[in-house]
Amino acid sequence: MGYRLILASASPRRREILSQAGIAYNVIPSEFNEREIMEKEPENYVKKLALAKAKEVYQRLFAGENNKKLDDKFVFENRENDFRLESLVVLGADTVVAHCGNILNKPSDRKDAAEMLKKLQGSMHEVYTGVALLYKNVDGEENIKNFAVKTQVCFYPMTTQEIENYLDCEEYADKAGAYAIQGKMAAYIREIHGDYYNVVGLPLSAVVQELKQLKIELYSCAF
Amino acid sequence: MGYRLILASASPRRREILSQAGIAYNVIPSEFNEREIMEKEPENYVKKLALAKAKEVYQRLFAGENNKKLDDKFVFENRENDFRLESLVVLGADTVVAHCGNILNKPSDRKDAAEMLKKLQGSMHEVYTGVALLYKNVDGEENIKNFAVKTQVCFYPMTTQEIENYLDCEEYADKAGAYAIQGKMAAYIREIHGDYYNVVGLPLSAVVQELKQLKIELYSCAF
Repeated sequence: MGYRLILASASPRRREILSQAGIAYNVIPSEFNEREIMEKEPENYVKKLALAKAKEVYQRLFAGENNKKLDDKFVFENRENDFRLESLVVLGADTVVAHCGNILNKPSDRKDAAEMLKKLQGSMHEVYTGVALLYKNVDGEENIKNFAVKTQVCFYPMTTQEIENYLDCEEYADKAGAYAIQGKMAAYIREIHGDYYNVVGLPLSAVVQELKQLKIELYSCAF
Repeated sequence: MGYRLILASASPRRREILSQAGIAYNVIPSEFNEREIMEKEPENYVKKLALAKAKEVYQRLFAGENNKKLDDKFVFENRENDFRLESLVVLGADTVVAHCGNILNKPSDRKDAAEMLKKLQGSMHEVYTGVALLYKNVDGEENIKNFAVKTQVCFYPMTTQEIENYLDCEEYADKAGAYAIQGKMAAYIREIHGDYYNVVGLPLSAVVQELKQLKIELYSCAF
């Protein structure tokens, strides 16, 4: 019957990417506090955070005392009753923008966002998404696959007025690096090198390839 | 008051890209027959076809006998009456997939689509979008800007079964190269080099930069 994918993230963008590909999933947002990750190097940071997010959800799913509760919620949300904890694969993910080796996370306010965009305009930067896949194999052994995907993004130069106009849209608010490639900022992105969906928040094709190599066939995957 | 953008294309994807960027536009689909273009070289083909599409619409707009009709249609569709023909910029565009220098256009049927996808899987190919901007400058002189943008696209290898599953979606039907990067095929696209939106059908950022250089400010551009 295959594995059921559990997305350990509340991000609507990650949901959209999975839905676009016809992949069925359930969402259990991680309650892991990202401030616990001390790592400063972008690639290691997203890998560690993705793993911590996935682990937190995985542990809640498999913790005896909470099993019943989560299971009930699942059945209720999905109107299905053939759900088995053994056939789950939990997907944790985290995305950051990196500029000259430094992490640009979500901006704290408009001023912070303006500073980030000034750094990025007219130059190349990197977007990293870390992914963690946690699952039990056919022998009941726990397995972890943890990796990160990099995409380079190159902006056209923006004038101060153009940056201010963009900030007026308020699109920047909850975005790493203060912009959304799938939003209005598309008008200033010259080119990318790598996976577009990795910049949006999930390296879809890399995840699909990893699942294929791990022989994890997803339950009710439409594609 | 700025220029009004006329999109000489019926493509819903091009509309979506302009809307995403907050650019206001009107649509007048070109009636140019693409079979009239004899060019075989992909980059020249899309440039010529984009220009022919834009010219056909531009000529209809400025042809004395049809002016009234088109103008009425405009006013009706947009509930605006400050429309002046002198302040128009007509945008023509065409997109093809190229593999080893040959154009892959829209597939004629499922068998044709399967053959195209077999060619593309596991390798790199190019997507070209040609753009033509036709407008009158402040002195009433007609101007043309005609260019093409290339994006390289790299697929993961797909099994015959995966190709068949994709064809079952029927997403391939009206797509150059028989796939949609913004659809389910995203699951098999390893990386791109260039503008993502160019693959979808319009090199948005290049168009915005050209308009900027031509000092064409768009009327009611939200961004």
